[in-house]
Amino acid sequence: MSIPKVFGALRGDRKPTRLAMWRFFRKRHPEVGSQPGTLVLAEDAAAPTIRVIDYDAETVEEREIEDLSELRSYVGRESVTWIDVQGLGDEQRIREIGEMFSLHPLAVEDLVHTPQHAKAEQYEDYTLIIAHMPAGGDETHIETEQVGIVVGRDYLLTFQERYGDVFDVVRDRIRHAGGPIRRRGPDYLCYALLDTMIDAYYPLLEAISDHLEGLEDRVASEPPQATLKEIYATKRELLAVRRTLRPQREAVTAIMRDENPLFSDAVRVYLRDCYDHTVQIIDVVDTYRELAVSLAEVYMSAISNQANEVMKVLTVMASIFIPLTFIAGIYGMNFAYMPELHHRHAYPVVLIVMGALALVMLVYFRLKRWIGPTSWKDRR
Amino acid sequence: MSIPKVFGALRGDRKPTRLAMWRFFRKRHPEVGSQPGTLVLAEDAAAPTIRVIDYDAETVEEREIEDLSELRSYVGRESVTWIDVQGLGDEQRIREIGEMFSLHPLAVEDLVHTPQHAKAEQYEDYTLIIAHMPAGGDETHIETEQVGIVVGRDYLLTFQERYGDVFDVVRDRIRHAGGPIRRRGPDYLCYALLDTMIDAYYPLLEAISDHLEGLEDRVASEPPQATLKEIYATKRELLAVRRTLRPQREAVTAIMRDENPLFSDAVRVYLRDCYDHTVQIIDVVDTYRELAVSLAEVYMSAISNQANEVMKVLTVMASIFIPLTFIAGIYGMNFAYMPELHHRHAYPVVLIVMGALALVMLVYFRLKRWIGPTSWKDRR
Amino acid sequence: MSIPKVFGALRGDRKPTRLAMWRFFRKRHPEVGSQPGTLVLAEDAAAPTIRVIDYDAETVEEREIEDLSELRSYVGRESVTWIDVQGLGDEQRIREIGEMFSLHPLAVEDLVHTPQHAKAEQYEDYTLIIAHMPAGGDETHIETEQVGIVVGRDYLLTFQERYGDVFDVVRDRIRHAGGPIRRRGPDYLCYALLDTMIDAYYPLLEAISDHLEGLEDRVASEPPQATLKEIYATKRELLAVRRTLRPQREAVTAIMRDENPLFSDAVRVYLRDCYDHTVQIIDVVDTYRELAVSLAEVYMSAISNQANEVMKVLTVMASIFIPLTFIAGIYGMNFAYMPELHHRHAYPVVLIVMGALALVMLVYFRLKRWIGPTSWKDRR
Amino acid sequence: MSIPKVFGALRGDRKPTRLAMWRFFRKRHPEVGSQPGTLVLAEDAAAPTIRVIDYDAETVEEREIEDLSELRSYVGRESVTWIDVQGLGDEQRIREIGEMFSLHPLAVEDLVHTPQHAKAEQYEDYTLIIAHMPAGGDETHIETEQVGIVVGRDYLLTFQERYGDVFDVVRDRIRHAGGPIRRRGPDYLCYALLDTMIDAYYPLLEAISDHLEGLEDRVASEPPQATLKEIYATKRELLAVRRTLRPQREAVTAIMRDENPLFSDAVRVYLRDCYDHTVQIIDVVDTYRELAVSLAEVYMSAISNQANEVMKVLTVMASIFIPLTFIAGIYGMNFAYMPELHHRHAYPVVLIVMGALALVMLVYFRLKRWIGPTSWKDRR
Amino acid sequence: MSIPKVFGALRGDRKPTRLAMWRFFRKRHPEVGSQPGTLVLAEDAAAPTIRVIDYDAETVEEREIEDLSELRSYVGRESVTWIDVQGLGDEQRIREIGEMFSLHPLAVEDLVHTPQHAKAEQYEDYTLIIAHMPAGGDETHIETEQVGIVVGRDYLLTFQERYGDVFDVVRDRIRHAGGPIRRRGPDYLCYALLDTMIDAYYPLLEAISDHLEGLEDRVASEPPQATLKEIYATKRELLAVRRTLRPQREAVTAIMRDENPLFSDAVRVYLRDCYDHTVQIIDVVDTYRELAVSLAEVYMSAISNQANEVMKVLTVMASIFIPLTFIAGIYGMNFAYMPELHHRHAYPVVLIVMGALALVMLVYFRLKRWIGPTSWKDRR
Repeated sequence: MSIPKVFGALRGDRKPTRLAMWRFFRKRHPEVGSQPGTLVLAEDAAAPTIRVIDYDAETVEEREIEDLSELRSYVGRESVTWIDVQGLGDEQRIREIGEMFSLHPLAVEDLVHTPQHAKAEQYEDYTLIIAHMPAGGDETHIETEQVGIVVGRDYLLTFQERYGDVFDVVRDRIRHAGGPIRRRGPDYLCYALLDTMIDAYYPLLEAISDHLEGLEDRVASEPPQATLKEIYATKRELLAVRRTLRPQREAVTAIMRDENPLFSDAVRVYLRDCYDHTVQIIDVVDTYRELAVSLAEVYMSAISNQANEVMKVLTVMASIFIPLTFIAGIYGMNFAYMPELHHRHAYPVVLIVMGALALVMLVYFRLKRWIGPTSWKDRR
Repeated sequence: MSIPKVFGALRGDRKPTRLAMWRFFRKRHPEVGSQPGTLVLAEDAAAPTIRVIDYDAETVEEREIEDLSELRSYVGRESVTWIDVQGLGDEQRIREIGEMFSLHPLAVEDLVHTPQHAKAEQYEDYTLIIAHMPAGGDETHIETEQVGIVVGRDYLLTFQERYGDVFDVVRDRIRHAGGPIRRRGPDYLCYALLDTMIDAYYPLLEAISDHLEGLEDRVASEPPQATLKEIYATKRELLAVRRTLRPQREAVTAIMRDENPLFSDAVRVYLRDCYDHTVQIIDVVDTYRELAVSLAEVYMSAISNQANEVMKVLTVMASIFIPLTFIAGIYGMNFAYMPELHHRHAYPVVLIVMGALALVMLVYFRLKRWIGPTSWKDRR
Repeated sequence: MSIPKVFGALRGDRKPTRLAMWRFFRKRHPEVGSQPGTLVLAEDAAAPTIRVIDYDAETVEEREIEDLSELRSYVGRESVTWIDVQGLGDEQRIREIGEMFSLHPLAVEDLVHTPQHAKAEQYEDYTLIIAHMPAGGDETHIETEQVGIVVGRDYLLTFQERYGDVFDVVRDRIRHAGGPIRRRGPDYLCYALLDTMIDAYYPLLEAISDHLEGLEDRVASEPPQATLKEIYATKRELLAVRRTLRPQREAVTAIMRDENPLFSDAVRVYLRDCYDHTVQIIDVVDTYRELAVSLAEVYMSAISNQANEVMKVLTVMASIFIPLTFIAGIYGMNFAYMPELHHRHAYPVVLIVMGALALVMLVYFRLKRWIGPTSWKDRR
Repeated sequence: MSIPKVFGALRGDRKPTRLAMWRFFRKRHPEVGSQPGTLVLAEDAAAPTIRVIDYDAETVEEREIEDLSELRSYVGRESVTWIDVQGLGDEQRIREIGEMFSLHPLAVEDLVHTPQHAKAEQYEDYTLIIAHMPAGGDETHIETEQVGIVVGRDYLLTFQERYGDVFDVVRDRIRHAGGPIRRRGPDYLCYALLDTMIDAYYPLLEAISDHLEGLEDRVASEPPQATLKEIYATKRELLAVRRTLRPQREAVTAIMRDENPLFSDAVRVYLRDCYDHTVQIIDVVDTYRELAVSLAEVYMSAISNQANEVMKVLTVMASIFIPLTFIAGIYGMNFAYMPELHHRHAYPVVLIVMGALALVMLVYFRLKRWIGPTSWKDRR
Repeated sequence: MSIPKVFGALRGDRKPTRLAMWRFFRKRHPEVGSQPGTLVLAEDAAAPTIRVIDYDAETVEEREIEDLSELRSYVGRESVTWIDVQGLGDEQRIREIGEMFSLHPLAVEDLVHTPQHAKAEQYEDYTLIIAHMPAGGDETHIETEQVGIVVGRDYLLTFQERYGDVFDVVRDRIRHAGGPIRRRGPDYLCYALLDTMIDAYYPLLEAISDHLEGLEDRVASEPPQATLKEIYATKRELLAVRRTLRPQREAVTAIMRDENPLFSDAVRVYLRDCYDHTVQIIDVVDTYRELAVSLAEVYMSAISNQANEVMKVLTVMASIFIPLTFIAGIYGMNFAYMPELHHRHAYPVVLIVMGALALVMLVYFRLKRWIGPTSWKDRR
């Protein structure tokens, strides 16, 4: 499955920048000391679009909401109402939705101020869940997007930062009459969304795996130091994913463990499965991080090996020729009385001595394995 | 938001020194073995100024106290009384305030002896909270200041080390009739102060983030070793912030968890929000530390890369010219019988041989990628 | 015991590839967001073969099942029925088996989607256990295979990814009338399988131990840098084994601790033994990892030592001959008035001076222990 | 406060040796397998001196005990009796004191065999506390001494290894009529001693802080490698302090938490304060260790930087002069037919070519920033 | 106390080999999948000798057992019977002893299959304890031997791998009438054995301490790289000891905590003492490991320092003489028109210039502190 297929055309054109990670941890926050519940919207936040899917075992109704008053008719219905808000760029609308479902101001704040840590908080009539889904990215970068979920007795709200998501498959399952999701309540829908978000990490991790494998192959051929930086970047990226997912695991545990009347025992079994998937993804991330560390070690030793190699070449060259040059220097001196100079065979004798000296050095360095086959083999 | 704006003109002129961090951990402490409750004032402690804000849903009264006896009239009132003491330089006055509110001598000691670890301790009639707020600093240094809070049934005391704080927004919210803070007790005020202190870390962490990004950019252009020291300093600074905030998180948890009659359930919900913020700040600090470590690794590999580069230049130069110089040395010898010297074409032949030798060496080094494009690309 | 003997001829021919570890962590997973319980079969999954062993204290019946309807006759019998499914390549058949024993769809999913983390989950009428057995490999690689076990009141199902396993010894113990396994229920059979899987790691770890010892010996003779990479690979492999076994230990603990009516107290004593073995294997793996780290340190210091050695040779050679060459250069100058040139003994005097200078340098370097016996001893 | 002032003249002359730390962990221990309760005295243990302070709210009696029978009169008195034994060099006397207060033989063994880990053990009628106080040292070494405390219903015993301690301030507080210590029991006295011991670490840690600051300054001026060793030694020292204090913190917790009838609730509040101080000291120690690590990193990078610098100088010198020398060598050859030699302007042309070549090299190295201002700045 | 004295002549002659540690972790194990309780004897296991000491407060009986039927008379006696089996080389005999005392087959397996992790397991009528005692070794190697202890109501069995042990002092204490050990049951005897095993580590750790101190001294004189390998080996050895002792500590805790009717409260107090000793030994081991790491760091920095030193010598020599040689080369050229050559004072002037140049270089390098006193001091 290709990544674009997962995230849809909406996500495909956004190129993650080098600074993405830095910015990730810059939570939007209200003026220091301002009243709790103050909403601060991201400058580039999109205008919210609201889509409603209302279903029970027999019927499905799906529509886009323009006027919030249309929404009011869904409150208190027996059927399951999934209200999906994409884009958080209109404070007034979001506040109104919050009031319609009697959400605590702090809950609304958590939904809007992104990124929050994943968490599950139980209020009197509803449960607030903050989770993150992957929202595009490539083999060197995983972008995530916050999804706020409010699970009530007969409704489920989702608040997404941006247009487009990974939930189309869930929507298809709802549209398809007779599927198990139609016979169950908002708790099961919540499970389906959480599970989908987790599963969406798999293709991204596979891309990272391919990337690391590619880097490993490059060591075998030649050790370019630039690769090291790439490895460190991947390690950093995996760390960011880990930081995102660890609280999400805790949140799923919290829903499972707490005596939450909104979640039935049957759905808890499914949540255990979702929990297992989260643990597995985290484990894969940890393994990849260790592989990245291991790769970095291999590269580091390759670099230090290369430095040794360079040193050996220098030393062998210098050690052979410096003494020979010295001998040549001796017989280049202009002393008046240097009897050797006038011997008939002096010149060839000196040449032979030089050759012998060079040979001795070569043999010595070969014995030390600084030159020749072994050294060559070591290099790879 | 610029940092000076947050901390006011009072803080703007103080330049954090290199030694600040060292001194941070030098708690003021009484003579070894002296009686518990002995107060030791910092030598440069400012004289205390006392400001009172007394409010209930209808009225607000705000005044500066000169004579402690004026304070007595606020004890036991129904309204919420916030007594804000800035500057801890007068033992007598502080002791008197403590007696007025029947504080335990050890509690008073904790308020005065700075810096203490953040903590929350429940006494019979009041809760003592020690927390830290950022008190200025720039992208390479975060200065913090201890704030001691005593929460009683109808009063709240704050003890600050120095003049000026980040609480002006809270004061404005109190002055503004009809805000939720006016309808609630000292527990909510305490939450508002704690939350404001935490939020005040955000702009500082953003400055550090900018700083680290700047350092990252410098690697790309050229790897100066001095940057490494700056990275280590930032890492150290982040560590200090972490050490300050971790106990603060525990303190907030303690207030939430303990069966403290002074804090209502409604306020506990807000404290959970404050707890989330603290966790998030700590997480951001951890992430920045890991980024600093990652940056340091990149720099280290850049430095070792540079050393390799230097070595290669030396080796290439020496390996090419040393043998050539040797050949020149040979024909510089003054032997009487060196037949080559008298050949007509000997000189050009030798020059050609030398050139060929140099070429062979160059090709060899190019094949090893010690010179040429790849090596050049690696360098960045 | 040789490894082929343990794993049988079926495993012997498969050569673990370098990419094996990478792929290990690529769990097969259904389309993102698809319905829970959707089965995704590995592309190369083998067609399932089903073998039944049905036994009680008196009788043993063993047969291969072609038609699933044959299986139905075993359901509800008093005797213990072990149904062993090898190969997971037929969705329909596996789903039918699951329905026959009323398995939860998620349980079936866990059995089929490999690799899963080891775990033990208690359902109403049965316990699902996921474990891993070694499935071949050599001294540089341990391949593992998932075994899914379902323990019911009077039956035990095993689902294996591939043909062939390590359970033949258990089958022999069942065939052998009068053994304790014949007098006990599926809980004891489950213990026997788990214990066999753990014990099968011993010969593989011995192979790794031999391998590491071999690497240690190579340091003593000569320090080739290529060995380092091998050490890192072994460390990585051990890490993968640890990751596989740690959840398996937790799974055994879970069966022991939970109030599981399917496991008798007598079998719990045996499980404690199995737990001890798992802990011991993990401890051996940890020890080997630390030894690998220690070996890498020794190699690293050997490499840096070798670099020092190279540097010393270069420095000694250059420091001795460069000054001498300079002196020779002086008397090679062609100045018209160089009185020394015409002294009768100038030439021998200069030679003696040169010799003396070389001697002084040699003594100096010897005193610094850069040359001579000590340096030689250090090299190994 | 200077260190000699804290520890008195008795301690001032003892110079901590390099081996002190090694020996610290050599616990005195009886012959292997000997009966429990066997006392083994240090060879250089001083003869015990016994000082008694007996006090209640009205009276204080202070005397030195020569004959143990004098001690018997204090047993069972209503007033608080502090029996302070300094020096553990007389087995018979210590055993007799133990019997007088019905101490368990193992408790006596713990008091005498030093150093023990700090701990608090509750026996039927008394509580045994082992703690450590600083006993001298300077900025590179903290020496500690074990103090064994036995807290009974109306008495408190202290056993110190050597003469002299940090308790004189406590004694003064007892002598001073009307202090709170006079109105309370042995539990408060125990707290006062524990708190004094902890506070006595502050001046030593300040000395270490000064020392580390001094080392930091040295990096700025010049990077001598010897400093590194000093940093490692300080790190090691701080580690030893940490190891001493961590169990002491646990011991204080144990007294606070246990349902120990010997300690009143009022004193527990004070112990919480003492606990806070211990935590703070440990935190300071941890911070200093991290600073030491950070300093070591800075030094390591300074050293590697220096090595780079050296390499660059060598490379620049060699790269410039080796080609020039080669050219000079060419025209030093003695070929009969070298037409250039006889050109009138050949010599100056060659000199100019050489100069140009040198200039090109210099510009090249300057562009690479191997020479010139930047490189110079980097060096510091 | 010398090590041979502790371990007796039996142990003295066995030389620990380099491979000992590797082999330590090769547990003897039965054929994979074989029946639980199958005994696998070490190939070199000695034939078991059985010694019985039967004692109560009045009488002691000591004898060597040849025929197992003699043993039967001790079963069920009121007195305490210590049956000590040394050597595990006879499956039949060990199985018979197990049956005589109704031991569970898995318990017998644990006693025989060595090495097991230390543990304490409570069976219905007896407690099984696996512990390790040091069994010889020197300053670079600690050999350990498994001791299996079975504590029953009126008997205690010990199973040792080899002849000879550290228990002779305990035997002497039993023989000596009137000692406390004679008045107590097998629980106290068990304590005495465990405590003796722990105490036997002290002399070995002292040998290691001496060894490390010796290595530390060697840094001061000269830094041979071979020492590093020795340090790593010691670190590894200490790690192995730690791994052996940590589960032993847990085992002692388990006996203390569990509601084990076989251990009286009085003996639990002694076990607490034994626990303290174990913790202390582990702490000493940890400290030594940290010292070894610290030493390795010092050595590493010494090596890198030495490399710097070598580099500096090379650079200084080359930088001084290469330019001078170049100048000499210039005036060695054979151009027809080189006016300087014919100046009367040209030769001395050139010599003076050369000298001045050398001087400038020397001063430059001195200012950089590459040569001279400081550099010299740094070297140590």
